[in-house]
Amino acid sequence: MKDKMTIILFSGELDKALAAFTLATAAAAGNMDVTIFFTFWGLNLLKKPGLGMKKSALLMQKMLGFVNRGLPLSRLNMLGLGPWMMKKLIKKTGAPSLEDLMKLARQLGVKYIACSTSCGIMGISREGLVDEVDEIAGAATYLEAAGKSKVNLFI
Amino acid sequence: MKDKMTIILFSGELDKALAAFTLATAAAAGNMDVTIFFTFWGLNLLKKPGLGMKKSALLMQKMLGFVNRGLPLSRLNMLGLGPWMMKKLIKKTGAPSLEDLMKLARQLGVKYIACSTSCGIMGISREGLVDEVDEIAGAATYLEAAGKSKVNLFI
Amino acid sequence: MKDKMTIILFSGELDKALAAFTLATAAAAGNMDVTIFFTFWGLNLLKKPGLGMKKSALLMQKMLGFVNRGLPLSRLNMLGLGPWMMKKLIKKTGAPSLEDLMKLARQLGVKYIACSTSCGIMGISREGLVDEVDEIAGAATYLEAAGKSKVNLFI
Repeated sequence: MKDKMTIILFSGELDKALAAFTLATAAAAGNMDVTIFFTFWGLNLLKKPGLGMKKSALLMQKMLGFVNRGLPLSRLNMLGLGPWMMKKLIKKTGAPSLEDLMKLARQLGVKYIACSTSCGIMGISREGLVDEVDEIAGAATYLEAAGKSKVNLFI
Repeated sequence: MKDKMTIILFSGELDKALAAFTLATAAAAGNMDVTIFFTFWGLNLLKKPGLGMKKSALLMQKMLGFVNRGLPLSRLNMLGLGPWMMKKLIKKTGAPSLEDLMKLARQLGVKYIACSTSCGIMGISREGLVDEVDEIAGAATYLEAAGKSKVNLFI
Repeated sequence: MKDKMTIILFSGELDKALAAFTLATAAAAGNMDVTIFFTFWGLNLLKKPGLGMKKSALLMQKMLGFVNRGLPLSRLNMLGLGPWMMKKLIKKTGAPSLEDLMKLARQLGVKYIACSTSCGIMGISREGLVDEVDEIAGAATYLEAAGKSKVNLFI
């Protein structure tokens, strides 16, 4: 039986997402079963272009969806200059981009679960999320995976 | 013997506190023993109204206590508009509020430990913390709980 | 065989570094094997005075290195007033400073690994890092340590 790793990706920031997917792909490449549980701002990684809202979304959910776009840095964001520099540096140094890592993660079988509670609060529909999402589920599903995992991280 | 989960709640932000207590209550409801170790800004969750300071607190501790009030969001705080919107959305969508989750956590037997080192630095007294706190203790006590836990998270 | 703890120190903030080293030293004092994997902003803890750049560093890496100095607080940074107050309070209350904790960590045998991917992106050379660094390595090395650890944290 394979070793398991489960990551809660709570943050919607470029640098933390890079960390999460670097770890996830390295673990999956090393023959571990990896699950990422996307919650709160982490759901930004799974949103289709556009707001990804339910048709019946509340005005306030649409407002939140509107301001909650893009992936800043957790530090030195500098009004967007930080993430732009980071992406440039990743390209220039030949490191894999977040898009590369996310594509690789799926090829290696990393499982994506979107947090149902967060989707409910933010008014995000299944159709608003990318096809790669395996499941929309709550904390109990996370805990089942985490309970069997050798490595659990909250990022 | 029950499975255990231990959470370090370092952050004093509404969104991260919601994540911590959602996980804690789900785990306790699923028959796990749950301990939350509140440290640094996480102690804000345990402070009684008012500054919760020792009488002998230093001026600088009082100043820090004064600015360190309330629970912002870790992202999109927007001078307090973000947390206000989040609370409204939680209410409108019927999700449990932080107050509900904290009440439930205690009903389900979640254990609260307040970090003694942080209390010392910040000048917080036992009387300044809510009655629900089971213990004021240091890192060694945390590590004892964490060493027996299947799931350990730093939030 | 000793129990193990592995910490990913991703954050370059004074308060989170204090938490990481308080835990690391307490664990090592309690006879655990402790490894800290420094990545992204966490590498700031390991940089020698000066920018610590490769001679061949790109202009953009030098710019990032220039703005990415010092250790702010994750909350209430107040343009540097927060960290200044925190250091004063630590001194006045007799708590160990970050410098004390880092010195103690090495005396107790805490292992330091610097993330090779982050060093590459940021243009940080081995010579730019303090001598205490045991190894520069990637996610696979982290996962090997984490897979054997009782306690894993992402800070």
